[in-house]
Amino acid sequence: MTDPRLETLLQSCPGLRLKTEPADLEHYGRDWTRRWTPAPLAIALPGSVEEVQAVLRWANAHKVAVVPSGGRTGLSGGAVAANGELVLSLERMNKALDFDAVDRTLTVQAGMPLEAVHNAALEHGLIYPVDFAARGSCTIGGNIATNAGGIRVIRYGNTREWIAGLKVVAGNGELLELNKGLIKNSSGYDFRQLLVGSEGTLGVVVEATLKLTDPPPASNVMLLALPSFEVLMQVFAAFRERMRLEAFEFFTDRAVHHVTAHGAQYPFAETYPYYVVTEYAVADEAGEAAALAAFEHCMEQGWVLDGVISTSQAQAQQLWRLREGITESLARYKPYKNDVSVRISAMPAFLEETQALIGDAYPHFDVVWFGHIGDGNLHINVLKPDDTSDAEFLGQCEHVTKLLAQVLQRFHGSISAEHGIGLVKKPYLSSTRDAAEIALMRGVKQAFDPNGLLNPGKLFD
Amino acid sequence: MTDPRLETLLQSCPGLRLKTEPADLEHYGRDWTRRWTPAPLAIALPGSVEEVQAVLRWANAHKVAVVPSGGRTGLSGGAVAANGELVLSLERMNKALDFDAVDRTLTVQAGMPLEAVHNAALEHGLIYPVDFAARGSCTIGGNIATNAGGIRVIRYGNTREWIAGLKVVAGNGELLELNKGLIKNSSGYDFRQLLVGSEGTLGVVVEATLKLTDPPPASNVMLLALPSFEVLMQVFAAFRERMRLEAFEFFTDRAVHHVTAHGAQYPFAETYPYYVVTEYAVADEAGEAAALAAFEHCMEQGWVLDGVISTSQAQAQQLWRLREGITESLARYKPYKNDVSVRISAMPAFLEETQALIGDAYPHFDVVWFGHIGDGNLHINVLKPDDTSDAEFLGQCEHVTKLLAQVLQRFHGSISAEHGIGLVKKPYLSSTRDAAEIALMRGVKQAFDPNGLLNPGKLFD
Repeated sequence: MTDPRLETLLQSCPGLRLKTEPADLEHYGRDWTRRWTPAPLAIALPGSVEEVQAVLRWANAHKVAVVPSGGRTGLSGGAVAANGELVLSLERMNKALDFDAVDRTLTVQAGMPLEAVHNAALEHGLIYPVDFAARGSCTIGGNIATNAGGIRVIRYGNTREWIAGLKVVAGNGELLELNKGLIKNSSGYDFRQLLVGSEGTLGVVVEATLKLTDPPPASNVMLLALPSFEVLMQVFAAFRERMRLEAFEFFTDRAVHHVTAHGAQYPFAETYPYYVVTEYAVADEAGEAAALAAFEHCMEQGWVLDGVISTSQAQAQQLWRLREGITESLARYKPYKNDVSVRISAMPAFLEETQALIGDAYPHFDVVWFGHIGDGNLHINVLKPDDTSDAEFLGQCEHVTKLLAQVLQRFHGSISAEHGIGLVKKPYLSSTRDAAEIALMRGVKQAFDPNGLLNPGKLFD
Repeated sequence: MTDPRLETLLQSCPGLRLKTEPADLEHYGRDWTRRWTPAPLAIALPGSVEEVQAVLRWANAHKVAVVPSGGRTGLSGGAVAANGELVLSLERMNKALDFDAVDRTLTVQAGMPLEAVHNAALEHGLIYPVDFAARGSCTIGGNIATNAGGIRVIRYGNTREWIAGLKVVAGNGELLELNKGLIKNSSGYDFRQLLVGSEGTLGVVVEATLKLTDPPPASNVMLLALPSFEVLMQVFAAFRERMRLEAFEFFTDRAVHHVTAHGAQYPFAETYPYYVVTEYAVADEAGEAAALAAFEHCMEQGWVLDGVISTSQAQAQQLWRLREGITESLARYKPYKNDVSVRISAMPAFLEETQALIGDAYPHFDVVWFGHIGDGNLHINVLKPDDTSDAEFLGQCEHVTKLLAQVLQRFHGSISAEHGIGLVKKPYLSSTRDAAEIALMRGVKQAFDPNGLLNPGKLFD
């Protein structure tokens, strides 16, 4: 603790927990991208809203940059601290504060892991429906900062729809209590919605009031084997028109290769080029019949080559693991990730162009595709061969992303569907948002964070 | 057309339709509040996005204030032009532009009336579910500017949830294409959501891509008679837990007095102090049974004194008219309107305090209560007696609103649930949004509208 600025921080916020050991700087300074070398000034671990405010006031007085930090499971470098910033970790502010049965809301501190939020909701017989594989590590504050999506968007929407109120410490140190859990509130600009997805550049989310809902009816999981990319949207349409889909996720044979090598069980005798895992409500026999009708129709059309339906909770989990285990199974290959979206109606033409582009651009790389196809969201994971250097690999991938961004621009799509822009996609932001919008983002940032101290360099320069 | 600025406007936008006749200035310069004397400079009626941009560029060059104008059915003075502003009416931009069956979206020009949007959706077998009594006169652009709510919020949410994309001309004249219909898009600040509810102070909505959904299952309408305010939330809870509510609206005997005098049919032999009209899905016999069970439970508890269930579409409409006809039946009394909200859980205590306040404050005025009680939204209409002057009446009502705002502040409620702030509630904005938030609103406005020309004086000074 040699930096004199940290002495003044402790003077202005006595009792604030600080970490400055090299192992801590490394741990809290990097996120799941692992692309940047962590180099934060120190790690502050406030225990209260007042301490968060004190840290922000000190930061403004001393012009120290601050990186808000949740589970750091982001894939866009949004939580990286590589330039002497103070990391502001919310991990000690991880408690449920209030449940209201009439409002059906749960108020939590921002550092609460998503899985703990799920469990707290279930204790009251309700669910918080946003869900994805990082649930055990990510925090609700980080989910809000990136408007996290995941595997249930097709049924429940993104994080944005589930936020009834937010407490935020703005970049200027002011505490904002946004919307306060109201259902109807037409009293000026909805800063709650502005803060969702702002990637820690406008304010630090310290508390959230989350909407809860009834648990879904009983559901089944079906795994489908497909012959080609071309039929994917037809299979989706056939299922969507017949049943209430809770999830509709696709992945490729390369994904199955990696995830089974990592321990997942594969249920078919043969391998196929493409797969879908779908979950759907089966309130009654009519629900079962509709699912079978969709499956049979797709088989008759030749769009589906094989399928299996879960007959137990354990089997449902096994089928889900084929999709949910992919990211973990790829981690050792330092995958380069694209997370892009277009309108569902644009998906067939976009998939065709993108498949051609990726096939040409990466003839020697292992490319793993998966995605939330019912939301128009495609994930492309390019694996680094062992004999290629990090720099060479990254250079080639960035070149392809530039081409992909041009395709996306023509399709009016987004360079980031759910991971956020952070550092990773900042060079491509202009493919999704035009210059006038980016200029307005700078203007809005100026209002919330006049000294430009919150997560500087993330999202835009 | 004597003002030289209008000559320059026509030079910079040849072919722009302009109106300057006194009757037009009066018609387009005022909204349903009728509290301010219209005095606009002129009325511009652009026919294209390019013309809207040209008007905004001219306004910036000549520092002329602009009032965006839809159906002017607002009740907060948000569309009033009383200070030499140019009214920018979207009424000629009123067409449906595109329907996409895969995305289930309808793209429309901002001047399209809400009822025309409903009809356009129905042509494709889908619905746009936001609905309220002004549907024939209000426009979708105005709905977006106030985040309009209405009678279906309990089931479908506010306008905000149904906007997949917006085209907006910002105050600086730049055209913004926001979100472009994407389901998932985490690429920086969601200005689409910021614009919803911004009351024409940041930009002019010129086009919207609306989400559509399946029509609801068959529904019944039930009218309930209640003995007191105190049981209202218990009746709501009894119905909510048993069935899928499409609407749950309450009103008082004074409302029934006015609406029946205006032609609505009253189905009971006796009169009661309070009423609820509720609509609920009846997909099958179980749905009917659940509704009857809720009704019988409430009768046994003494919370409900009488009831009637619609047996035909015509009767359903008759029952609805008792609620939907209220605003029209009060119009001749120049009612002073409060439109407030609290969390549902706070409703019982808030109702008790508010009832006492209103009873004490208006002993000689006819006060008509109604509201969307399932959303925590209460409408209070105070009718002006014939022998009280406008000024005296307004003064007394404003005094009471000041007291009501203090109550709301203690309950963390909102001074405007769905009408917006406009001019009418501007003096009370600080009861709902604190000084730090209002300062940030000014900062955001500065970014979008650097010359402060869009709807100046509305929302905040």
